[in-house]
Amino acid sequence: MFLRVDKLQTEIPAPKKADPNAAAALQELLGGKYGEMSTLGNYMFQSFNFRSKSKLRPFYSLVAAITAEELGHVELVSNGVAMLNNGPDKEGADEGDGGDISGAPFEAMKDIRSFASFASGAGGALPVNSNSMSWNVDMVTTTGNVVMDLLHNFHLECGARLHKLRVYETLTDPTGREVCGYLLVRGSVHAHAYALALKNITGVDIEKMLPVPNIPLGNIPECQKYLAEGSHRRLYRFSPNDYKEMSGIWGNGEMALPGDPPGELEVVDGMPEGGKIHDLTGIPSAFAPNYAPEEMFEIATKLYKASR
Amino acid sequence: MFLRVDKLQTEIPAPKKADPNAAAALQELLGGKYGEMSTLGNYMFQSFNFRSKSKLRPFYSLVAAITAEELGHVELVSNGVAMLNNGPDKEGADEGDGGDISGAPFEAMKDIRSFASFASGAGGALPVNSNSMSWNVDMVTTTGNVVMDLLHNFHLECGARLHKLRVYETLTDPTGREVCGYLLVRGSVHAHAYALALKNITGVDIEKMLPVPNIPLGNIPECQKYLAEGSHRRLYRFSPNDYKEMSGIWGNGEMALPGDPPGELEVVDGMPEGGKIHDLTGIPSAFAPNYAPEEMFEIATKLYKASR
Amino acid sequence: MFLRVDKLQTEIPAPKKADPNAAAALQELLGGKYGEMSTLGNYMFQSFNFRSKSKLRPFYSLVAAITAEELGHVELVSNGVAMLNNGPDKEGADEGDGGDISGAPFEAMKDIRSFASFASGAGGALPVNSNSMSWNVDMVTTTGNVVMDLLHNFHLECGARLHKLRVYETLTDPTGREVCGYLLVRGSVHAHAYALALKNITGVDIEKMLPVPNIPLGNIPECQKYLAEGSHRRLYRFSPNDYKEMSGIWGNGEMALPGDPPGELEVVDGMPEGGKIHDLTGIPSAFAPNYAPEEMFEIATKLYKASR
Amino acid sequence: MFLRVDKLQTEIPAPKKADPNAAAALQELLGGKYGEMSTLGNYMFQSFNFRSKSKLRPFYSLVAAITAEELGHVELVSNGVAMLNNGPDKEGADEGDGGDISGAPFEAMKDIRSFASFASGAGGALPVNSNSMSWNVDMVTTTGNVVMDLLHNFHLECGARLHKLRVYETLTDPTGREVCGYLLVRGSVHAHAYALALKNITGVDIEKMLPVPNIPLGNIPECQKYLAEGSHRRLYRFSPNDYKEMSGIWGNGEMALPGDPPGELEVVDGMPEGGKIHDLTGIPSAFAPNYAPEEMFEIATKLYKASR
Amino acid sequence: MFLRVDKLQTEIPAPKKADPNAAAALQELLGGKYGEMSTLGNYMFQSFNFRSKSKLRPFYSLVAAITAEELGHVELVSNGVAMLNNGPDKEGADEGDGGDISGAPFEAMKDIRSFASFASGAGGALPVNSNSMSWNVDMVTTTGNVVMDLLHNFHLECGARLHKLRVYETLTDPTGREVCGYLLVRGSVHAHAYALALKNITGVDIEKMLPVPNIPLGNIPECQKYLAEGSHRRLYRFSPNDYKEMSGIWGNGEMALPGDPPGELEVVDGMPEGGKIHDLTGIPSAFAPNYAPEEMFEIATKLYKASR
Amino acid sequence: MFLRVDKLQTEIPAPKKADPNAAAALQELLGGKYGEMSTLGNYMFQSFNFRSKSKLRPFYSLVAAITAEELGHVELVSNGVAMLNNGPDKEGADEGDGGDISGAPFEAMKDIRSFASFASGAGGALPVNSNSMSWNVDMVTTTGNVVMDLLHNFHLECGARLHKLRVYETLTDPTGREVCGYLLVRGSVHAHAYALALKNITGVDIEKMLPVPNIPLGNIPECQKYLAEGSHRRLYRFSPNDYKEMSGIWGNGEMALPGDPPGELEVVDGMPEGGKIHDLTGIPSAFAPNYAPEEMFEIATKLYKASR
Repeated sequence: MFLRVDKLQTEIPAPKKADPNAAAALQELLGGKYGEMSTLGNYMFQSFNFRSKSKLRPFYSLVAAITAEELGHVELVSNGVAMLNNGPDKEGADEGDGGDISGAPFEAMKDIRSFASFASGAGGALPVNSNSMSWNVDMVTTTGNVVMDLLHNFHLECGARLHKLRVYETLTDPTGREVCGYLLVRGSVHAHAYALALKNITGVDIEKMLPVPNIPLGNIPECQKYLAEGSHRRLYRFSPNDYKEMSGIWGNGEMALPGDPPGELEVVDGMPEGGKIHDLTGIPSAFAPNYAPEEMFEIATKLYKASR
Repeated sequence: MFLRVDKLQTEIPAPKKADPNAAAALQELLGGKYGEMSTLGNYMFQSFNFRSKSKLRPFYSLVAAITAEELGHVELVSNGVAMLNNGPDKEGADEGDGGDISGAPFEAMKDIRSFASFASGAGGALPVNSNSMSWNVDMVTTTGNVVMDLLHNFHLECGARLHKLRVYETLTDPTGREVCGYLLVRGSVHAHAYALALKNITGVDIEKMLPVPNIPLGNIPECQKYLAEGSHRRLYRFSPNDYKEMSGIWGNGEMALPGDPPGELEVVDGMPEGGKIHDLTGIPSAFAPNYAPEEMFEIATKLYKASR
Repeated sequence: MFLRVDKLQTEIPAPKKADPNAAAALQELLGGKYGEMSTLGNYMFQSFNFRSKSKLRPFYSLVAAITAEELGHVELVSNGVAMLNNGPDKEGADEGDGGDISGAPFEAMKDIRSFASFASGAGGALPVNSNSMSWNVDMVTTTGNVVMDLLHNFHLECGARLHKLRVYETLTDPTGREVCGYLLVRGSVHAHAYALALKNITGVDIEKMLPVPNIPLGNIPECQKYLAEGSHRRLYRFSPNDYKEMSGIWGNGEMALPGDPPGELEVVDGMPEGGKIHDLTGIPSAFAPNYAPEEMFEIATKLYKASR
Repeated sequence: MFLRVDKLQTEIPAPKKADPNAAAALQELLGGKYGEMSTLGNYMFQSFNFRSKSKLRPFYSLVAAITAEELGHVELVSNGVAMLNNGPDKEGADEGDGGDISGAPFEAMKDIRSFASFASGAGGALPVNSNSMSWNVDMVTTTGNVVMDLLHNFHLECGARLHKLRVYETLTDPTGREVCGYLLVRGSVHAHAYALALKNITGVDIEKMLPVPNIPLGNIPECQKYLAEGSHRRLYRFSPNDYKEMSGIWGNGEMALPGDPPGELEVVDGMPEGGKIHDLTGIPSAFAPNYAPEEMFEIATKLYKASR
Repeated sequence: MFLRVDKLQTEIPAPKKADPNAAAALQELLGGKYGEMSTLGNYMFQSFNFRSKSKLRPFYSLVAAITAEELGHVELVSNGVAMLNNGPDKEGADEGDGGDISGAPFEAMKDIRSFASFASGAGGALPVNSNSMSWNVDMVTTTGNVVMDLLHNFHLECGARLHKLRVYETLTDPTGREVCGYLLVRGSVHAHAYALALKNITGVDIEKMLPVPNIPLGNIPECQKYLAEGSHRRLYRFSPNDYKEMSGIWGNGEMALPGDPPGELEVVDGMPEGGKIHDLTGIPSAFAPNYAPEEMFEIATKLYKASR
Repeated sequence: MFLRVDKLQTEIPAPKKADPNAAAALQELLGGKYGEMSTLGNYMFQSFNFRSKSKLRPFYSLVAAITAEELGHVELVSNGVAMLNNGPDKEGADEGDGGDISGAPFEAMKDIRSFASFASGAGGALPVNSNSMSWNVDMVTTTGNVVMDLLHNFHLECGARLHKLRVYETLTDPTGREVCGYLLVRGSVHAHAYALALKNITGVDIEKMLPVPNIPLGNIPECQKYLAEGSHRRLYRFSPNDYKEMSGIWGNGEMALPGDPPGELEVVDGMPEGGKIHDLTGIPSAFAPNYAPEEMFEIATKLYKASR
């Protein structure tokens, strides 16, 4: 079972301007082969399909708990995409009808890279890559062989790190850069964790290969506050009571990677403090949440009162 | 953010025999257009992309909380698929090497409908339909228009109910039938909930159309215990503290559908009690979790002890 | 069986300039999930697969006749796409060889959103969406359950209306705007018709939800002439002799939607008067219909004479 | 524009038994690369995108009129698929509720090749091939170059003929065999027609290559009645008034292929006499058209009367 | 550039019987995510896209030369698929017309898993997996980062080994088993080679993880003759003059894996001796290579003589 | 079996500037339906699946040898794509770390048509078309019927020529234009060869239809040097010893097409002289081949020395 908490794993700064092509670029980290839908899909199905769970508890717990974190990553990137498409909040923007729709108010959308993201999604996020291709089952490996699956996951996190770095290098808006910075730190944790799991089984110290690519997190300004708070040494259980056994792998005297701030690895109860979900402004002229939504707001207010 | 709890939403009985074609049939409810990956994907992205969340809190909360329940549905069907592929537990089955692999021990797999589910997934679940087609973005509608999205969701839940009924009618093993029975009750709740949300906005009492198809849950033996405990009147918040506002829609004096046991609709804190996740036996001869996995088990035991 | 008439359902004005990105935007209404290929594909296969046709004649006739209209919609959008790609006619443009092809005469195409639409299609229409993704079977629902299929169709037409509105808001050229205006009126008719069919079976007055999105046709200048001639109250049989029975649903005292010009709904024999298919100019330098096509024209003239 | 007539192009005999795998085999001729959706899609978009229509009227008319025939082919195969899935009519089969659905009445469906065709489509036809893969844009060639498009079409019809022959060789039920027999004759006409069009432009007598494969229609018993009535020499205009100009290509002294019954080629006004669309029986236990559909039938009867 | 030699890399024994489902199973090793099209596609595009080739010559040469071997693997599996579909040679089988085609001579094909492989391919191989899904770009990783690409390749070869093992376990016919046996040995070489490449760059002795899965080649009877001849220690250059530099990685004192027959690794000039390509018998009744192909054979004989 | 030679079939001039959209356009000739992956895939699988090879040796040899040439075409276009993405070499560009990555050094990539080609592929080539759609099995026809396959191939080469012409017309950089010019000459040879093969079997002089489109190679400046050296009259065997039998088809007194420089057709032993593969410069700041790759270069140098 899964529970949901109405917060993001970290707070994302507001965008400076609407930039649909930047949003589309960020989609690579959502629905691309090495994006968050892939890390989620791989670990989720691997954890469902895990054999001999009770006899392999530490390994199962690791994959199961990271699955929950990946759900939050999918949420984080999705919020980033929607915010970049929407641009900065404008007061009163979600009231009224947005003006005369017959004047082609969205002419500028005609030339963006992913027209369908506007026409169909009103700038929301979708499980597609930066070229609008759908995420699909070919991006999921769940063989039931624990060594194979862990090796796949290690490679996947390294690939994800490379993609995050390149997307980061194309973005100037703080919204997207913060998403990349946060995910780079957390992705490094996951790569490290799968390396340690593999080392325990095979004896090969594969974590010495990290980081892949060979650029330390220290070079990325947006990573610094997360490093400072020790995020690179923490795995959260993302569960009220379960998955403690993964501390046999993440912990147990293992230390942070050499290039990162030093310290012991630790499993942390619960979840990070997190940040506020941005209250995405509506665009009445694009019929989101509705054309002239005031009546709908009134109904919602009444229902809200009834719920108290 | 999302949290994870190491239980299923309901307990599934053990299968009577391994039946890969039944497992493949059940995949329709996982990765088909009207399967649980679709309900999950639609509500998850709709909740991420929701506009004017604060002004439309009851509607947002409804979609957001149901998303969390759908994650558990994906998990439930996935467990059912893996159990039907695996068959009943055999003592000692996950030890040793499973015998001489050169004797074509899996010849029977050659003729199943989804050979790749064995060759690639060792009988695990995947985000594909009953014909092995991938789930994809064409199964997601997130327009940002609240009426449109709710109407889509209402139609989606009705379609999902139809597919569950038909899959149910092809299965004889209690494992798959229980999955269908549980999902039929919960799917009816979701259809009802989206109907009430639509009624609040549009004034149309669309819930009077239910059930679609027009066969009451009372005709399905596997639904009875869930009806008896009132599951058809309950929406869980699936959250430690959030999403209470949906009780303005689900509650507020609204009653169970006429064909179901009577009573008031209610939002329930937290989550259902749930059931145990079956400890899926390994198949060493299929290299899941490993060929001759005893050494791996020993390593896991040591790590487990280290985690205490 | 189907017959063809060499006219469009309405006449489209000539484009002011070639605008491949506008043409690509219009493709959303052709091959997108909520485009005309989808309405066509859904109703066509539903009508082929319809059970108990003779006992459910009014419902069958409704779906069957609208299928024929949707073919004309696919044709209309396709013509719009090709015209926007081609731009205004230039005298003599389809003669000769178009000049020196080694001078990169189509350099401008290098930067359009759908390069393949030029390289492969010479600017013609294709069954793809605005991001060049193929229309496919995941966009077709044909369950054989009449309530479910009608509910799906109602949701589909509402979704289609939303997409038409958004595409309309991005276009400035009269060619594309006329296509949108016409389709908005006709799509509203179809949404209304499926609502009435559902109301007859379920008793729920679902048509009161219309229009979705909640903006009346009266706000769209390009819709006015169609409203003035009563197009919003008319369903054509699109058949020499069949499908009259749908007047039990569309007609029978039912009235136009409140926001539209008042009047009774009526089934009209045959088809609309329609407009001329634009004689799309060739581009010899792009080898369409041929490089230096004069000889081909001469051959055609001879064959034409032979056919008289 | 297109009109619809409530008949099939030829009458199909009732099936001897339900045979979902035979129905799935027939799907190759519907949604396969060389199936009727492909011939339809190619000619439909080619006719929409045709350049210099007025100057190339005989060629345009040929492609445009054959498009209309292909719509009827899609319909014919679809009817065949649904009939083979449904099996012979049983009296009273579409009344009542079909019995206790909890007894797994459709267990046999669990092992058919296309489970989704039952679970989702209730045995109806879909735009997929015999392996359930979707028809898609990669099966459409519309280059705007007339020679290239005609050459493609010639190759497509030859490929279609090969596929029809092979499907025919796997079917024993008269329903599917009649579909193949009819389509073989009509497909030969289309191959011949495109060959003549090419010959007119290029001077190459490519029709001498026919038939491909090199087996005459005379070897197929199901083709004989169509040959006897001269179907192999006829192209229908499938239009009230248009497309007469194609007789410059099909006609004009051209004769039937050497292996077929001799005679002159002729363009025929209108359409073939055609046959009855089979009144596909419902399956209430599969919720098609509904569970216990009597009430729906009564409503339909009232609406039918109101329509008179 | 590439050259072709009319031999297989090893000789495959003739099949004992036609077994289309076994052929379909073998397709997993051709077009599956971990099949030979994937290893080919990954290494081919990586070698094309390789940066700083001259400065990284040993790594480039390794990937480039293995690409050529993978082409032969694609060929080998394809031959296996076609042979299993075709069954044992029957004398005179490819002459005449194969008998009366109207007697449904291929009725048995109706129930095989991949009907299209017969209807469209006459039993030939295609770039699809065992469930008939197409190989596609999502199975290709070519990031330009050498460590990432090598790590991916190492994981890919381990995954490929797992799939080969499972397919092997389902096959009883010597044709398919030989294909698996040969590929298991060669795949192990490739996994080993990529491990050594990674070790050279990163210092991590990742080859100590092998074999994945943890079952030695010694357990597979079909591998023994290849082990005996030292195939597990050899990388062929598959080139008249190039790619010698890879001996810096494969060679250089490195030894066979501990579980395999001992000895030094060596780069071998040229290619293996290889075996005969089976002269696949025609099936005239399935129009392959033609119906009644004698005339075609005569023409070929004349052309053959003219070529001498 | 296949061998590889570390050269291109012809030398490509260096690009004048980096132009990712031009590179994306060129992708149409790589992964499009009528691109080199398609010609390769069709002939490769046709040659694997060829029936009665020994009795049809000249036809088999033709398809088999052209397959090898197509591999080189895939390589040629891939090199062109990577070069256009990379732009002209800059001295020292592949050393160091490329500067501060936090300054969004690749901001310009945000607006290119195929963002993923940068984010995932660092500007390398992939088996996709110009709109980033994957090459797939629907682009492969291998029916086993020799006439059908040859006819398909003839149509494919004509379609390929049309696409090459249109891509050529959009490119200004000599890199892409040279690729097009070379492929136009070689594609014409293949179209001619398949026409002659068909003529031998069917007696139809289909080569008289060429060229399609009807523009001679003489109009393309980049084709002239290849025409001058007689490339249009040559088929290479691309094999040390095999495929000589195709000279029964290509040769045997057949002459060049009328519009091209006159002369006899001839089969040439081996392969063309070819040109150097460009040593694609690294981009350390994009982590290709690595961030600060000097250490990797040193390792490679040591391994290189060890290989001598």
